[in-house]
Amino acid sequence: MNANTIGNIFTLTTFGESHGAAIGGVIDGCPSRLKIDFGLIESELKRRATAQTQTDSQRKETDKVEFLSGILDGVTLGTPIAFMVRNTDCKSSDYDELKDVYRPSHADFTYQQKYGIRDRRGGGRASARCTLPIVVAGAIAKQMLMTEQISVKAEIASMGDVEQARKDGDSVGGVIHCCIKNVPAGLGEPMFHKFQADLAAAMFCLPAVKGFEYGDGFAMATMKGSECNDAFVCENGKIHAATNHSGGIQGGITNGEDICFNVAFKPIPSIALPQQTVNEAGEDCTLLIKGRHDVCAVPRAVVLVEALAAMVTVDHWMLLKRNSH
Amino acid sequence: MNANTIGNIFTLTTFGESHGAAIGGVIDGCPSRLKIDFGLIESELKRRATAQTQTDSQRKETDKVEFLSGILDGVTLGTPIAFMVRNTDCKSSDYDELKDVYRPSHADFTYQQKYGIRDRRGGGRASARCTLPIVVAGAIAKQMLMTEQISVKAEIASMGDVEQARKDGDSVGGVIHCCIKNVPAGLGEPMFHKFQADLAAAMFCLPAVKGFEYGDGFAMATMKGSECNDAFVCENGKIHAATNHSGGIQGGITNGEDICFNVAFKPIPSIALPQQTVNEAGEDCTLLIKGRHDVCAVPRAVVLVEALAAMVTVDHWMLLKRNSH
Amino acid sequence: MNANTIGNIFTLTTFGESHGAAIGGVIDGCPSRLKIDFGLIESELKRRATAQTQTDSQRKETDKVEFLSGILDGVTLGTPIAFMVRNTDCKSSDYDELKDVYRPSHADFTYQQKYGIRDRRGGGRASARCTLPIVVAGAIAKQMLMTEQISVKAEIASMGDVEQARKDGDSVGGVIHCCIKNVPAGLGEPMFHKFQADLAAAMFCLPAVKGFEYGDGFAMATMKGSECNDAFVCENGKIHAATNHSGGIQGGITNGEDICFNVAFKPIPSIALPQQTVNEAGEDCTLLIKGRHDVCAVPRAVVLVEALAAMVTVDHWMLLKRNSH
Amino acid sequence: MNANTIGNIFTLTTFGESHGAAIGGVIDGCPSRLKIDFGLIESELKRRATAQTQTDSQRKETDKVEFLSGILDGVTLGTPIAFMVRNTDCKSSDYDELKDVYRPSHADFTYQQKYGIRDRRGGGRASARCTLPIVVAGAIAKQMLMTEQISVKAEIASMGDVEQARKDGDSVGGVIHCCIKNVPAGLGEPMFHKFQADLAAAMFCLPAVKGFEYGDGFAMATMKGSECNDAFVCENGKIHAATNHSGGIQGGITNGEDICFNVAFKPIPSIALPQQTVNEAGEDCTLLIKGRHDVCAVPRAVVLVEALAAMVTVDHWMLLKRNSH
Repeated sequence: MNANTIGNIFTLTTFGESHGAAIGGVIDGCPSRLKIDFGLIESELKRRATAQTQTDSQRKETDKVEFLSGILDGVTLGTPIAFMVRNTDCKSSDYDELKDVYRPSHADFTYQQKYGIRDRRGGGRASARCTLPIVVAGAIAKQMLMTEQISVKAEIASMGDVEQARKDGDSVGGVIHCCIKNVPAGLGEPMFHKFQADLAAAMFCLPAVKGFEYGDGFAMATMKGSECNDAFVCENGKIHAATNHSGGIQGGITNGEDICFNVAFKPIPSIALPQQTVNEAGEDCTLLIKGRHDVCAVPRAVVLVEALAAMVTVDHWMLLKRNSH
Repeated sequence: MNANTIGNIFTLTTFGESHGAAIGGVIDGCPSRLKIDFGLIESELKRRATAQTQTDSQRKETDKVEFLSGILDGVTLGTPIAFMVRNTDCKSSDYDELKDVYRPSHADFTYQQKYGIRDRRGGGRASARCTLPIVVAGAIAKQMLMTEQISVKAEIASMGDVEQARKDGDSVGGVIHCCIKNVPAGLGEPMFHKFQADLAAAMFCLPAVKGFEYGDGFAMATMKGSECNDAFVCENGKIHAATNHSGGIQGGITNGEDICFNVAFKPIPSIALPQQTVNEAGEDCTLLIKGRHDVCAVPRAVVLVEALAAMVTVDHWMLLKRNSH
Repeated sequence: MNANTIGNIFTLTTFGESHGAAIGGVIDGCPSRLKIDFGLIESELKRRATAQTQTDSQRKETDKVEFLSGILDGVTLGTPIAFMVRNTDCKSSDYDELKDVYRPSHADFTYQQKYGIRDRRGGGRASARCTLPIVVAGAIAKQMLMTEQISVKAEIASMGDVEQARKDGDSVGGVIHCCIKNVPAGLGEPMFHKFQADLAAAMFCLPAVKGFEYGDGFAMATMKGSECNDAFVCENGKIHAATNHSGGIQGGITNGEDICFNVAFKPIPSIALPQQTVNEAGEDCTLLIKGRHDVCAVPRAVVLVEALAAMVTVDHWMLLKRNSH
Repeated sequence: MNANTIGNIFTLTTFGESHGAAIGGVIDGCPSRLKIDFGLIESELKRRATAQTQTDSQRKETDKVEFLSGILDGVTLGTPIAFMVRNTDCKSSDYDELKDVYRPSHADFTYQQKYGIRDRRGGGRASARCTLPIVVAGAIAKQMLMTEQISVKAEIASMGDVEQARKDGDSVGGVIHCCIKNVPAGLGEPMFHKFQADLAAAMFCLPAVKGFEYGDGFAMATMKGSECNDAFVCENGKIHAATNHSGGIQGGITNGEDICFNVAFKPIPSIALPQQTVNEAGEDCTLLIKGRHDVCAVPRAVVLVEALAAMVTVDHWMLLKRNSH
């Protein structure tokens, strides 16, 4: 069990603290002879870094990725692909005042309880910055999917009023909708690695995610079977589902229709408003957060949702290939 | 990668088709010297079998579990605990008419696409009956948690009108709410095995589950940070969160508060109403399902939600024990 | 981490104690639509049961395998294949005298230290009988390999004087040589799942195994590079190694030549001669073993070595299939 | 399944090609609050780099390790410990002549067969240099073991005549003996993760390893049970084995005695003597290797054997801690 690894065949192991030397990852299981489009990787990182000016933290993340292994002349070797991004623009002093304080709804308290030690600078391992390696691995996964004409596209389905929240010193949440198109039928394992199970687990690895639903999701709890069953039809000699309440998955296995799902994000816990809480000694204190923080996680998370969806799809696609006798 | 195994340290591998010889499982990683309460296992199985008379299928599932290994004189040996339940009341003939038909929103089509073969009798491996081993493993996990005063309790939060649906030949869905109490702080891994990630993955392994949320869940997408941040307080020398919008988890790690979550179930796809679909040859056909089927999966699923929650908790609790230096 | 599971894609999880209800296993990852040759499974079990009359224990192991899942009309479904053998001819009373004694070179002491409890009857989980499920899984693996014209053949390379040892109330060891033929080049992972690493790990799971070597093995420690390098030649347009000191593996990856290896077995620790040892209380005692025991593990182990070799080969063959882009 | 990861709880994932940008690794599962002795890591790396002047390649490996994450102020955080060593002194031109040639007993051919591409520079991923991360992880594992008074010590048991081989343009092999002392009883899993199985698998991950034996090893194949059984005695109230033919492991589980084993290394395949082989086109050619190469792998491998032994021991020690109920 690797706590910092995701995937079964196409795997990503990540490392790094927000204000440590570097953030990075190791992709193991990527097939050989894949031509890497470094431009796509950069543009995906840019999508994350500059997602929406209004909601961005002011930290300048140049996010220059250096690849350390696994690629020769732009082509994968089949060996592990290691990469890293140096942490350069760290203002750790911003966090000095916070070092003993348990910020509300942050991971300060739980890390301290679990490890008996924590890197207080910039949120340490719990920082949203630590999702950066997911973007890199996701961009490579997308390139693999492109060769199979599979696409992954996420968008903001709803979001709180960012401009008002910024003025108020508050933060907001939102929902991201994502759709994976042209996935072949047969991906996913029927019992404990159902496609939706691995997909949900991946999404809940993103900070601030509080809910996941696929197909018609929670709404189906109030529907009738006759309203939401997806009948099969045969068109041009091809059998497929005429409707898609199921969200492209039946019995844990993809049916060839679009895989559609929603991911709910809570408001970012770091707000400018003063908050009452306690420090490590248990003493009451008023928290005034001065560091750079986003108002909403959702804009940046769009590319992350796509990245993880691409990684899960590639992983199951590689698992599928081994099944035929 | 074991497609039919769940868990990292406390693991369950399941096997069986609905109308095959037996359904069962192997629990690996259960500590030695645990006194097994067979009465609890039986009563948990009964909860699943007789959940709600109105919604039950008429199949008589006596569900007599036979333990094959790992237990001596009622005490665990530390070796794998294998168990099975014979499938005795199988009316496979009920399914003869269905054998070529792709039932709407069932797994017939996806299994056929994935494997090129399927056990048409009673839904085969995709049958809800195949969740039975989860109840057994969950009952043992609960016994381990009891020794730590950890409890798991699920209940129906909402459900469609079962009696009306039965009359209409239709089916309904619902939502189950579950709460894990007295979990110590520190369970869960910070990046890819966050407690909520493993919990969500477990829940999505249950048939008909379409959504999962924890804490205030999807509702948090429309809240402000100032409304849903959980401040810390110190009471009687103990630091804890004063509110619990977070649902007992922060940064992927438990904080000692109740772990609360909701699981949404869609209506059961087998309905008595005639449905249009196609058969394997792609020919249009009208489906009339005569077999024994529940009207709603939710009542039976309550004990399953508890079982999986208990298993995930035990698994992370055992992982935690190894972390301290 | 499953302590009782072997394999990455083609996996076997075993369960059972020697005198418990049953011994068995679950094979997960076997492809669908494989026609099972039950006759081969039976004949392989017979090879183990009756390996060599002179060295056999007198326990009548009818070893009737019952398949519980995963096979329909003799063909695999792609779902887990569970099977078991009832333990019927158990003379647990033979072990009553031994119940407090730590038999020399047996697992009594280590199990007691590890688990604080042990099944004293027939050696419990440490009994050689618990290797039976390996034979079943190996027979299925062999059937998969046959479709690829890959063969696995083991034989006794050397063995102590069994007849003399029986007269003396003593036991002997030996060496098994095994050869896997027609394996395609490319199996094995280059760093931590080298083909020889997985093969060695598998062999050391058999009771009494003390050494493993492949190719020219330990003898190469005294050779010169010029004596044991395998030059490549091109014959009929096909490049291959002209000699095979390497034993079919270079850099952890198969090269297409025969994979040859030796496995060394120590003498069975249960001997008829009286032995001095201590009981659980630490008191000196003289041990007189009356139970049924083999004089040599080697004859029975031939089919086990083949079975594990077949399983490792199938597992890596299935891993290979997923690698090509 | 991570091809480049070793370990179950204390894991190491490695990356890097010999002449790529960097060689490195990620240690996941190291407990928090371990004070890192960087001096030990450096001295261990130096043991590998300068093992024996006579047998060294002339490549100057400064091997300056940079830690990228997981350590704050010299203390572990419980998060992944990533590290790397830049590849600086690369003379890739040395390999230009070899780029199309399949060197005898090298991994050129198998990598090409497996991946359809290979990094010809310096042996790529198959270079002995890629074992460097093992030394780093091993040094940290040793520090953990020191807190438990467990020691790991390897030495050269036998080796060919290095000075003569150098003059002859040839290479030699040898055997390393290793002993792990003061390991508590109870480490190792009884079926498929027996202590010796994981230990053997680890050793066979080292380049040039052809054999592994523990305790009296292959010699036991010719011994009698009465000669090599390890009787138990009770001294000072403590039960232990009076002799140690078993090598500290019985039934796959450590018994508290020294864990002793031997690892056999073949001669390094790169020799100065001209060799006949073929190129990728299948054309006969005479190979003259000019690059920097060791005459014998054994001196450098001593620290590697210790490192892997330490890692396996730590891994099982952490697994043990979770077992007690």
